[in-house]
Amino acid sequence: MAAVKACNILITGANRGLGLETVKQLSEDSCPKRRIFATCRDPDGPKSEALRELVKKHPSVITIIRLDADDPCSIKESAKKVGSLLGNSGLNLLVNNAGIVARGTIQTSSVEDMKHTFSTNVIGPLLIIKEFLPYLQTAAKASGTPGMSCNKAAVINISTVGGSISTMPSLYDQFPVLPYCVSKAGFNMLTVLAAEELKADEIFCMALHPGWVKTELGGEKAPLEPKESVEGMLRVIGSLTEQQHGGFMDYTGNTIPW
Amino acid sequence: MAAVKACNILITGANRGLGLETVKQLSEDSCPKRRIFATCRDPDGPKSEALRELVKKHPSVITIIRLDADDPCSIKESAKKVGSLLGNSGLNLLVNNAGIVARGTIQTSSVEDMKHTFSTNVIGPLLIIKEFLPYLQTAAKASGTPGMSCNKAAVINISTVGGSISTMPSLYDQFPVLPYCVSKAGFNMLTVLAAEELKADEIFCMALHPGWVKTELGGEKAPLEPKESVEGMLRVIGSLTEQQHGGFMDYTGNTIPW
Repeated sequence: MAAVKACNILITGANRGLGLETVKQLSEDSCPKRRIFATCRDPDGPKSEALRELVKKHPSVITIIRLDADDPCSIKESAKKVGSLLGNSGLNLLVNNAGIVARGTIQTSSVEDMKHTFSTNVIGPLLIIKEFLPYLQTAAKASGTPGMSCNKAAVINISTVGGSISTMPSLYDQFPVLPYCVSKAGFNMLTVLAAEELKADEIFCMALHPGWVKTELGGEKAPLEPKESVEGMLRVIGSLTEQQHGGFMDYTGNTIPW
Repeated sequence: MAAVKACNILITGANRGLGLETVKQLSEDSCPKRRIFATCRDPDGPKSEALRELVKKHPSVITIIRLDADDPCSIKESAKKVGSLLGNSGLNLLVNNAGIVARGTIQTSSVEDMKHTFSTNVIGPLLIIKEFLPYLQTAAKASGTPGMSCNKAAVINISTVGGSISTMPSLYDQFPVLPYCVSKAGFNMLTVLAAEELKADEIFCMALHPGWVKTELGGEKAPLEPKESVEGMLRVIGSLTEQQHGGFMDYTGNTIPW
């Protein structure tokens, strides 16, 4: 199904929801020599059981790595670990998927929720890009082909239409999640600045909206199943060209305004 | 000069730069019964001397209030203090001007700078809007005129083109200030959600870019003097109508893309 040909892939928040489904679909396609680093906060905990089960089916493909996006030390350690496993190979695709949601309005948002969403959804990905950058650079140099693509070296930031400043006001009544939206708008800025910074290394970077999906984060009312969302996102990721560098698209390939 | 007719006005970060210049111009115009609450972190410190001098010229107009945007307790206390001084009058205009800048890129931004800019530039204004909202509501109700304007009840968030996700990539080489840009994109999201939330109370809200100004924050190379920037912003503020509610403009009245 997926047209993604990237060899070495890292996905954060891989123990559930969209992250888990992404690992599943990428481990089932026919790409030879694929290696997936599936990161999560607590690899041995009960919330990672489904991921551990998936590893049993694809033990040579998936490696679980501990990474807590809210903890700089764990990010550094995960990069060291992945680096030692990669050896001289580079990392072709980094998917910043881990994220949290917090509800609130101007009148009800707590300082704690504002800080926690920002730390996990923005500072975490910033540090992750920084720490894994050397491996992305290695992959970009090793590819031998000019230009940018997700099969060569890329960062895909899983964002949301909730981070779209032009779109969100019309959705605010239905989704009063101000701390989440503010953090995701910051994440979108991080994405475009990362794109600007990484282009000299020919590392692709963009923001992707998975749609409104039935996950722990999206809730029961969501119209999309994780399978459909991830199939769409992988189709988009596989087809990306330099034209979309620094962009913001949804899982169907439509551009979203900032 | 200024066409702003708002009676009771609060300006944060009023001890220097654009904040100080705004207090100066608003206290010199001919609006009768004007009352300006000029807030700063350290009213008695050396960095507030120019503001204290200005108060000597307009003692019946300007009141200095202690407010540290990075300290929730001080925000609460300032609101109580201003509330007691306002009595039954409402607050017509709240200018969220206080802000800090921090330099950095993906590779060099520190966690500390990311947290500090977000706390001061986003969480601070969130709490300020929340705490001063009752006084804004009082002013909106008391006005007797329908619709929204800055003379009735309004929140003006001093943002920056550096928070424009569509514009900033082309400026990033010249201004490598990632923590600042990320916080200001979050601030812009806060602005549009606040606009959405406050419209039921007929309280106007928008984001305003002051231009690149010769201040401590803007640096020596900036082409604009504070006087020119503030004259422009006050002209824009005075002319705003409901059409601009939830918008993003610069000091000349041009719309900035998100």
